[in-house]
Amino acid sequence: MSNLPPDPDAPFLRACRGEATPWTPVWIMRQAGRTMNEYLELRARLSFLELCERPDLCAEMAVLACERLEADAAILFSDILLVLQPFGFTLQYVEGQGPILDPPLRAAGQVDALPEVDGGTALPHVLEAVRQTRAALRPETPLIGFSGAPFTLASYLIEGGPSRAFALTKRFMYQDPGAWHALMEKLVRTCAGYLQAQVTAGAQALQVFDSWVGCLAPPDYRELVRPHMEALFAALPAEVPHIHFATGAATLADDMLVPGVDVLGLDHRTPLAATWERTGARGVQGNLDPCALLAPPDRLAGLVDRVLADAGGRPGHIFNLGSGLLPETDFEQAIRMVAHVHERTT
Amino acid sequence: MSNLPPDPDAPFLRACRGEATPWTPVWIMRQAGRTMNEYLELRARLSFLELCERPDLCAEMAVLACERLEADAAILFSDILLVLQPFGFTLQYVEGQGPILDPPLRAAGQVDALPEVDGGTALPHVLEAVRQTRAALRPETPLIGFSGAPFTLASYLIEGGPSRAFALTKRFMYQDPGAWHALMEKLVRTCAGYLQAQVTAGAQALQVFDSWVGCLAPPDYRELVRPHMEALFAALPAEVPHIHFATGAATLADDMLVPGVDVLGLDHRTPLAATWERTGARGVQGNLDPCALLAPPDRLAGLVDRVLADAGGRPGHIFNLGSGLLPETDFEQAIRMVAHVHERTT
Repeated sequence: MSNLPPDPDAPFLRACRGEATPWTPVWIMRQAGRTMNEYLELRARLSFLELCERPDLCAEMAVLACERLEADAAILFSDILLVLQPFGFTLQYVEGQGPILDPPLRAAGQVDALPEVDGGTALPHVLEAVRQTRAALRPETPLIGFSGAPFTLASYLIEGGPSRAFALTKRFMYQDPGAWHALMEKLVRTCAGYLQAQVTAGAQALQVFDSWVGCLAPPDYRELVRPHMEALFAALPAEVPHIHFATGAATLADDMLVPGVDVLGLDHRTPLAATWERTGARGVQGNLDPCALLAPPDRLAGLVDRVLADAGGRPGHIFNLGSGLLPETDFEQAIRMVAHVHERTT
Repeated sequence: MSNLPPDPDAPFLRACRGEATPWTPVWIMRQAGRTMNEYLELRARLSFLELCERPDLCAEMAVLACERLEADAAILFSDILLVLQPFGFTLQYVEGQGPILDPPLRAAGQVDALPEVDGGTALPHVLEAVRQTRAALRPETPLIGFSGAPFTLASYLIEGGPSRAFALTKRFMYQDPGAWHALMEKLVRTCAGYLQAQVTAGAQALQVFDSWVGCLAPPDYRELVRPHMEALFAALPAEVPHIHFATGAATLADDMLVPGVDVLGLDHRTPLAATWERTGARGVQGNLDPCALLAPPDRLAGLVDRVLADAGGRPGHIFNLGSGLLPETDFEQAIRMVAHVHERTT
């Protein structure tokens, strides 16, 4: 903790701008949750949602994870789906099922009935968590704010929970594109306000998680999602870098690089160097298979080296997993991974 | 039914060889199951596995679906996982959970204890289903035999059922590559014999379903899977065409085109023309999103036309979905899709 302002030249922020760094910066999606002992102890007392509603504990977890990992950035402890609560949906995390949203949005007519949610004020506990996390972090550690992207949020609303085929979401899109676009526009406005407010509260970078958009054929993405991502990224504060992340989206990467996106977040199935080269992104983030952390340390080191070799030391690479830390991960392996990235690239 | 031998110049077979056809041939993965009324009536009396063990009913379903759809090929009514039963695993299809294999294979030491299964003789009811289906089909309709691919089969053995992250499978691969390769070699031998026997029994083409291999990073595919696919395709009878299919595998397509693969089966997320051009495959199969069949007829027609435009009428395109027919599909929509492909390309 310090009274100094956050360092604008932290390696993570420099990499987001495509600038050279003293080492390859690294952080881990879901680094504060899932698998750290202190987190598991808290979760024995509090549900995941109760924890998300306690700014003090969110800050404690975010800072502790970052320090224990020696990561180059902290991320807000929160969840991509919280922003759906003020629309009037009940959110529950059900063991073995994942997040459940109730009631699911199934009829096009329900879209008009959704309230207009001011993302800048609707989740004061999240903004308070941003403030407390920023205050507790060292000035040299940037804080990443985030939100789910409109497609992924809409898919949870329509499916009512996780899905494999996203059949209800696609049926909705195909049957009533007008209602779909209205829903996406509504979500864009709320997410934009929410992300702006996180920057005002102290975030130095923003990541937009379009976790499930990789289920779409590229032409569907271009017609039904991309215009809304253009609107969203155009509305984000230009003073912080913007990361656009999806999984299983190798064939969408070019279209995901809408104006305002600084960094593409790539999963392990997406060739990092080839995608970076082809799209011309300022930076790329990724892209180790989260399962690599289940490998023996020697194999893990080899898998990390493979990603580093793919990135080739080019300025603008932020090392990360290709998706979130798996619950079965040993946190010590995550610590080892971060140390190995630093050692190899310093 | 007829005493004439199957027509070697059926449009589907010509397309597999990259030859010009009078129209774009089309069939649908899982066309005989899932959603046809006659199938649902049978399933009210028999479990899926009981049905798979009745060659007469398998033949009836395969032929009926093909005729009602006016598809250009029939596929054996069976399941990719049956070949695991003679290894000593109990296979069950559990409502809401999918296929469950018991006991799961978790320890490297279990691989040596697996029996050597002669795929050519271990599943006589499947071969009898091939014979009866072939006998009941019109000579102008080719019959496709199939098997799961070693990776996908191994993933079911190790996970014990469906998976999202394939964490146990990857942990197995990373922790004991020797045992992994031994397991894959064993599965290759069995699958090769099984597929050869299907050709002897009357199949005119073979499809290898590596349904879940798209979960791998491309370098992992090259190291841990591709050598085994080379061995498998090298062992298949050269007198019939071979289709190599996977989902979510856009970034593996080049490596999936091992010698002996005639046709790449692509899912809806994989750009068809660009992948065809880049890999130089003789033919490509796909790649309509199965959810397109949930769209209103006009929208469905537009989505079909988009795939046809992508293929550009080039000889060697076999129209299909990008993965299996969804259970929620109206069979009339599938009929409409096949008719539309024929109408547009004749």
